[in-house]
Amino acid sequence: MFGIWNHPEAGRMTYFGLHALQHRGQDGAGMSVVNDGTFKSYRGTGLLSEVFNDSSRLKSLAGNKAIGQIHYAMSGQRNDIDNIGPFLFHFHDQDISVTHSGNVTNSRSLRKELEKEGAVFHSTSDSELLVHLIRRSKQETFEGRLAEAVKQLRGGFNFLVLTEETMYGVVDPNCFRPLSYGRTREGGSTVIASETCAFHATGTDFIDNVRAGHYIVVTDEGIRTEQYETDTKIAIEAMEYIYFARPDSEFAGINVHSARKNLGRQLAKEQPCPDADMVIGVPNSSLSAATGYAEASGLPYEMGLVKNQYVGRTFIEPTKELREQGVRKKLTAVRGVVENKSIVLVDDSIVRGTTSKRLVQLLREAGAREIHLRITSPPIRFPNYYGVDMSSIQELMAAHYTVEEMTEIIGCDSLGFLSVDGVIEGVGTTFDAPNKGLSLSIFNGDYPADLGDYGVSLAEQMTPIQKKVLRGEL
Amino acid sequence: MFGIWNHPEAGRMTYFGLHALQHRGQDGAGMSVVNDGTFKSYRGTGLLSEVFNDSSRLKSLAGNKAIGQIHYAMSGQRNDIDNIGPFLFHFHDQDISVTHSGNVTNSRSLRKELEKEGAVFHSTSDSELLVHLIRRSKQETFEGRLAEAVKQLRGGFNFLVLTEETMYGVVDPNCFRPLSYGRTREGGSTVIASETCAFHATGTDFIDNVRAGHYIVVTDEGIRTEQYETDTKIAIEAMEYIYFARPDSEFAGINVHSARKNLGRQLAKEQPCPDADMVIGVPNSSLSAATGYAEASGLPYEMGLVKNQYVGRTFIEPTKELREQGVRKKLTAVRGVVENKSIVLVDDSIVRGTTSKRLVQLLREAGAREIHLRITSPPIRFPNYYGVDMSSIQELMAAHYTVEEMTEIIGCDSLGFLSVDGVIEGVGTTFDAPNKGLSLSIFNGDYPADLGDYGVSLAEQMTPIQKKVLRGEL
Amino acid sequence: MFGIWNHPEAGRMTYFGLHALQHRGQDGAGMSVVNDGTFKSYRGTGLLSEVFNDSSRLKSLAGNKAIGQIHYAMSGQRNDIDNIGPFLFHFHDQDISVTHSGNVTNSRSLRKELEKEGAVFHSTSDSELLVHLIRRSKQETFEGRLAEAVKQLRGGFNFLVLTEETMYGVVDPNCFRPLSYGRTREGGSTVIASETCAFHATGTDFIDNVRAGHYIVVTDEGIRTEQYETDTKIAIEAMEYIYFARPDSEFAGINVHSARKNLGRQLAKEQPCPDADMVIGVPNSSLSAATGYAEASGLPYEMGLVKNQYVGRTFIEPTKELREQGVRKKLTAVRGVVENKSIVLVDDSIVRGTTSKRLVQLLREAGAREIHLRITSPPIRFPNYYGVDMSSIQELMAAHYTVEEMTEIIGCDSLGFLSVDGVIEGVGTTFDAPNKGLSLSIFNGDYPADLGDYGVSLAEQMTPIQKKVLRGEL
Amino acid sequence: MFGIWNHPEAGRMTYFGLHALQHRGQDGAGMSVVNDGTFKSYRGTGLLSEVFNDSSRLKSLAGNKAIGQIHYAMSGQRNDIDNIGPFLFHFHDQDISVTHSGNVTNSRSLRKELEKEGAVFHSTSDSELLVHLIRRSKQETFEGRLAEAVKQLRGGFNFLVLTEETMYGVVDPNCFRPLSYGRTREGGSTVIASETCAFHATGTDFIDNVRAGHYIVVTDEGIRTEQYETDTKIAIEAMEYIYFARPDSEFAGINVHSARKNLGRQLAKEQPCPDADMVIGVPNSSLSAATGYAEASGLPYEMGLVKNQYVGRTFIEPTKELREQGVRKKLTAVRGVVENKSIVLVDDSIVRGTTSKRLVQLLREAGAREIHLRITSPPIRFPNYYGVDMSSIQELMAAHYTVEEMTEIIGCDSLGFLSVDGVIEGVGTTFDAPNKGLSLSIFNGDYPADLGDYGVSLAEQMTPIQKKVLRGEL
Repeated sequence: MFGIWNHPEAGRMTYFGLHALQHRGQDGAGMSVVNDGTFKSYRGTGLLSEVFNDSSRLKSLAGNKAIGQIHYAMSGQRNDIDNIGPFLFHFHDQDISVTHSGNVTNSRSLRKELEKEGAVFHSTSDSELLVHLIRRSKQETFEGRLAEAVKQLRGGFNFLVLTEETMYGVVDPNCFRPLSYGRTREGGSTVIASETCAFHATGTDFIDNVRAGHYIVVTDEGIRTEQYETDTKIAIEAMEYIYFARPDSEFAGINVHSARKNLGRQLAKEQPCPDADMVIGVPNSSLSAATGYAEASGLPYEMGLVKNQYVGRTFIEPTKELREQGVRKKLTAVRGVVENKSIVLVDDSIVRGTTSKRLVQLLREAGAREIHLRITSPPIRFPNYYGVDMSSIQELMAAHYTVEEMTEIIGCDSLGFLSVDGVIEGVGTTFDAPNKGLSLSIFNGDYPADLGDYGVSLAEQMTPIQKKVLRGEL
Repeated sequence: MFGIWNHPEAGRMTYFGLHALQHRGQDGAGMSVVNDGTFKSYRGTGLLSEVFNDSSRLKSLAGNKAIGQIHYAMSGQRNDIDNIGPFLFHFHDQDISVTHSGNVTNSRSLRKELEKEGAVFHSTSDSELLVHLIRRSKQETFEGRLAEAVKQLRGGFNFLVLTEETMYGVVDPNCFRPLSYGRTREGGSTVIASETCAFHATGTDFIDNVRAGHYIVVTDEGIRTEQYETDTKIAIEAMEYIYFARPDSEFAGINVHSARKNLGRQLAKEQPCPDADMVIGVPNSSLSAATGYAEASGLPYEMGLVKNQYVGRTFIEPTKELREQGVRKKLTAVRGVVENKSIVLVDDSIVRGTTSKRLVQLLREAGAREIHLRITSPPIRFPNYYGVDMSSIQELMAAHYTVEEMTEIIGCDSLGFLSVDGVIEGVGTTFDAPNKGLSLSIFNGDYPADLGDYGVSLAEQMTPIQKKVLRGEL
Repeated sequence: MFGIWNHPEAGRMTYFGLHALQHRGQDGAGMSVVNDGTFKSYRGTGLLSEVFNDSSRLKSLAGNKAIGQIHYAMSGQRNDIDNIGPFLFHFHDQDISVTHSGNVTNSRSLRKELEKEGAVFHSTSDSELLVHLIRRSKQETFEGRLAEAVKQLRGGFNFLVLTEETMYGVVDPNCFRPLSYGRTREGGSTVIASETCAFHATGTDFIDNVRAGHYIVVTDEGIRTEQYETDTKIAIEAMEYIYFARPDSEFAGINVHSARKNLGRQLAKEQPCPDADMVIGVPNSSLSAATGYAEASGLPYEMGLVKNQYVGRTFIEPTKELREQGVRKKLTAVRGVVENKSIVLVDDSIVRGTTSKRLVQLLREAGAREIHLRITSPPIRFPNYYGVDMSSIQELMAAHYTVEEMTEIIGCDSLGFLSVDGVIEGVGTTFDAPNKGLSLSIFNGDYPADLGDYGVSLAEQMTPIQKKVLRGEL
Repeated sequence: MFGIWNHPEAGRMTYFGLHALQHRGQDGAGMSVVNDGTFKSYRGTGLLSEVFNDSSRLKSLAGNKAIGQIHYAMSGQRNDIDNIGPFLFHFHDQDISVTHSGNVTNSRSLRKELEKEGAVFHSTSDSELLVHLIRRSKQETFEGRLAEAVKQLRGGFNFLVLTEETMYGVVDPNCFRPLSYGRTREGGSTVIASETCAFHATGTDFIDNVRAGHYIVVTDEGIRTEQYETDTKIAIEAMEYIYFARPDSEFAGINVHSARKNLGRQLAKEQPCPDADMVIGVPNSSLSAATGYAEASGLPYEMGLVKNQYVGRTFIEPTKELREQGVRKKLTAVRGVVENKSIVLVDDSIVRGTTSKRLVQLLREAGAREIHLRITSPPIRFPNYYGVDMSSIQELMAAHYTVEEMTEIIGCDSLGFLSVDGVIEGVGTTFDAPNKGLSLSIFNGDYPADLGDYGVSLAEQMTPIQKKVLRGEL
């Protein structure tokens, strides 16, 4: 998400901001712009550059206030254009554009209730839900209606709301994912963004993060923040540090690359591999961690896997036969580097295990003698319900298999995970909150926020391993 | 270039092979396929995945023999589809498809001569020139005509020639850029490719490189190589190792990543920087070298520059105003890493100097205290006439400025280049030839092959610095 | 609009049906299909063949029940994809797809009321309005809710409503535009369509028209029709016969081509031109009428204007300069036919007058000696509020100028309109209703249905000529 | 073909000119433009508006001289972009752009000869052949070389040749198809075009036709025409009048619509049908003829077949099953007009007979009682080798069946063709030449020009009916 207030080229700035956030989703993009009271909006499926592939498109979105979104289609969500933000609503008395990231856990029940009262939804998006709640609120001011609406939501979410007079940025009571704001060096426009890397791309100086349970109000008069919920408990999603965010972003004052390097160092301490010849990271997300592991262990850091930079969504898939013949597209192992070597392979996480298995096979084919897989996170044993889509329980390898079983299935010579405490130590947050302010629910099943409509299905599908974890036996 | 003989899915294999070679050019791609004596061809501008964005396109190119090309538009060349290989020619007695890489230095004079005799050219491509020479040769066999044609060419070039009965791969007398061949593990098809990374992508085992002044002949009977020119002198273009090739490729038995790491180590010896806090490489081409420099110097290797993976050709360019406001798209400096630090910035080369200048500025804005730029090649002072387009003399920064002047223009605190001998030492080739088999002409003006039509213009445009180099004064 | 119930290739049939209806709008197209209880929908801007230009699109819309729409963007309506039918709504208890043609005159007030109660609209479409009304109705059955909803609407409208169990076709109490139903010769599927030309395209035999104030109910059990409004008065829009419908369609048992030919005959009686050399029709809509005029007058029918069949929406517009130089694209006058001749030019209507002016100029440039313009409708002096967009009062030439003034502005030698009675006579309907069942409001300002939100603005903008007409003075 | 000399917007004018010529081919389009000595060219497959669908494309073709082409892919010709004109050739001493229409009958032998001397062809186009011949000529001037080259060609052809200094328009010694030139009313630019309808579209006044065996030379100094061949015999292809050209064009001073109407009148005399109820023409090409037949016979002219104006190349084909169910797309029969009627159906020609068969079936299904098919040309019994692709002997219905057999296969109640003399009479040319200057070879096998490479194959494939015709027995 990216928003900008009071910039002569708000649409173009939003394009640059979103471009820096492209890694957060590749399924769609959109933008709403206000120009002298007139709202315009455009959204489409695909990469930002595909949605706005025509420069006339961007030109037509002239205006001085804008919000935009990079869309990430969650599994189980209808993935059509109707679910891509921002949403633009024209009422007889007002226009509103809204976008969000995260996941409202009680949306299904709220929508059902509203439908019973005659509401008509066009999408399954939480942004649309928010607008319905706002429009049904009897509070006198728009801000009052917004606050009343947000208070009814559970889960993890950030919202950007744009009206002609005001831009709002809302953060859930746990602040699962940060929302930062700043000021452009030229012109002093106000910018709100999901990651500070969007600030670099737009010449913006960081001011602060919106706190848990707060919202920010941006008008021509200036900036203020308000608290809509007092029962807050900071719990930043640990996976943002571990793999999701861009290395040049900062969350809670901690640079993501540095956090990853520290996680690698911590991993080297917890899961050493002294007889290996070298450390290799999986490009690109685990390179920081791999250099940390290498430095802490004293082993050389090598580039044993190479990523083809030109793999796009339009790549024509090989037939199964060709794939079995060894056709590779995305990553290749460098024979000249790994042949006859014992390797520490550092990766950030194991979800389904299929990627790890393929990497091990790639390295074996290139002649690697031993492969010791080291993961800078604990086993992911529980689904994430707050917006980082770690797929369903059925697919989570570590919800079904022990580490020993995983080692065998993946085919590596050894497999080592970072501990839950190691994550806290490695990331280095210092909040006065459980886990020093991190959400670690996908590792330990301890969910900081109400699971809403998901609670029952989680309970019903619980695997033996998950139960052990919850009983503290694993 | 990629060619495959005798594979039931020759077109698809060529697609995968070319995909691995995409870094060698982004201006176009094409493919010719033979199916039971019928040639089909398709070529287009843009990335391979853009040219073949429709899977029906590839399906229509069914066949069991194919050659393909990734196109790199050289400055000064008409960049239309007519110059993209492979070329397909239908004659009353034969069909021929040809593609090439490199640059024939006497093409202009040869074409003029042929035009005077009534020849009609459709492109400025050297592939078309070769076909004219073949068709005018009076030799009895096609192979004889091909050899006679190739012998008339000067410069650096590789050709793939496909007829119904035979696939030929031709290498110039200096072997400026290698041409490797191998055999697929499944089915035993013969593959020819510009880089061995295309072998990984197609499950191919390396057999050998085609030698300087030789061509390879692939038929249903098998493989043989013939020498068409005895006056040979191996001179592999050093820039292939330094920056052009993919790190997982091997040239002359040397892995490119390892060569780059060695160049980084060598640079650390020649141009040390003991008081710096860290080493940073320019993503992605200089990361190998940077780790080598870090290891050899004992300084930590950090990720201070981050590359946006989603920068494609469709990115909408910012206006000048926005750019001046600090809008960045491709690379960002990581403030959390570089702030208040003294940095060794490792890059592979300086051509125009504009990129270096921008990188230094980026790091300064992110708070870097000192920036020591270290380059894993000598100053590039002379144009390349053999196919690696290093732009014209006018644009080569080191042809006009001394290292001291360059330091000032770029704005770094110090600037250090690798020596010419350091390149030879770092790459580590062991041929019994000048420079141990490397071409270093762009550094020292010593051109291994006849400059043909370019000789005069080079002499006329010579800068004072170039003259000094040639006189051995620099 | 086209709907089909119980056909194994419902989507494809809808495509063919809509294709026959393409003349009713070129601004967009869409289709909703039900397959085993699952609804799918697709809509887009442009011609039907542009929206479904990818055959995989149509394949993905497999199902055995479908409704579809050709979209015609009315002036003043937001023309984005959100207004193109059919609309598909997913509720927790039901899916509904709706599309409509025509115009609900009290939609603005109904929407405002609903918004005050918290309703959120995504479009300005009357289809969406209907769904809101249905969902808020407290009737027990869906059919009851639909009937209650429709009863609240004013103006001219047809709706197609598709649920899993039923397809409904609704006609307003005046039946401004017919809705016909029939049965396919093969398989006996039920088809509903705006014009019977869609029956020819799908092998459908006509059964009947849905009556004014009725709706048809199609289920697996069969077909029945219900009356939801007893206060009905048939008033078929005369312009459907005069120019909008396809000549091979039938409305109220009258073939459109024959009606037009009769209008031409009637015009020859009312507005003769005995000294002319020939009769020319404006291609393609006025050719039928011109042959009628020719036959009745005994003058030869000639092809003096030729239409370029290849004028599409992608035609690149000439610059003003080139246009002034005489660049023509759509119609050309045939010099060899018209030179030095006195011509009766038959056209169907005059809206803004610009087309007539241009045609006269074209014929003059081609050498025509005299041009007698004859129109098979009376002067259009009032806006149409029931769905045929005749543009605003400001633009209606005959609302501002007398026939004499129009003759001068258009530049013809004489100008003759058909009388209002002549329209009734020519079309030949025989309903026991005012004007024998035709709506002639755009000629005489006598609106059969409540103007709703438009009434006030019409009264405010009334021109002197309109006032005269209403006073019976013109 | 369209060419323009000395117009500030030559490219745009060519676009408009070609647009008027779109009916002459839908397989491709192209344009070459000269701007201050620099040639630019663009060509592509599809309709003109598809090739130039991007207005920036046309903008980039700025210049003041241009030639353009509408491409019609002949059966048996490789239909790739390489065969679409105009062709642009860059030589060291000159740039030449060439395009043509028609067919050179000795091209295969000429090409083979040239290939033996080392020539390399990129296409099978006669335009390329001409350039080879020009470049090999030893004449001193370009004009001399052009004349020498053209003299070697046999068959029917028109060429446009554009150099920096001159535009040439060449017509074969029989003038199978005319080439007209004129002057724009504004600015006095010189225009050359295949049909005069392109003059209307560009504000051009007709000057004259280029005579048989002549070429026109357009320079900044003015216009002159030269004769390159004295052995000439005018033989305008009759099918241009009968069905190929646009009704608003004029050939040899005769308007095409008027010629068709006369052909219809003539047909009414030769093949009357006094008891029929009405005359119907096949839209759009036979409407003129049908009105002529109606007038001469006194029968009413009706619109019994309606053409869907929105049938484009992207129309999705119905499956065979749907087609058999009666799915129609292009033409529909109007039941309200034809039911229980005896009909004279006027069409311009019968090639394969499949269209006629389908039309008869359509009318029968719509209830027509009797169908009397009347054709405004004689049976087409011989292939056309001069550029109008009437398909191969194998496919020509009248080369295999008698009129009686054709009546039965087509399923009409009677079938009548115009006589060969009736064509001459109806068209009304008055040249002092065989057939008054018309080529009627496809009817009587009497070929005015050398058949070149086609002569042998014609002789070998001769059918019994063709032999009878040549012996004068039919």
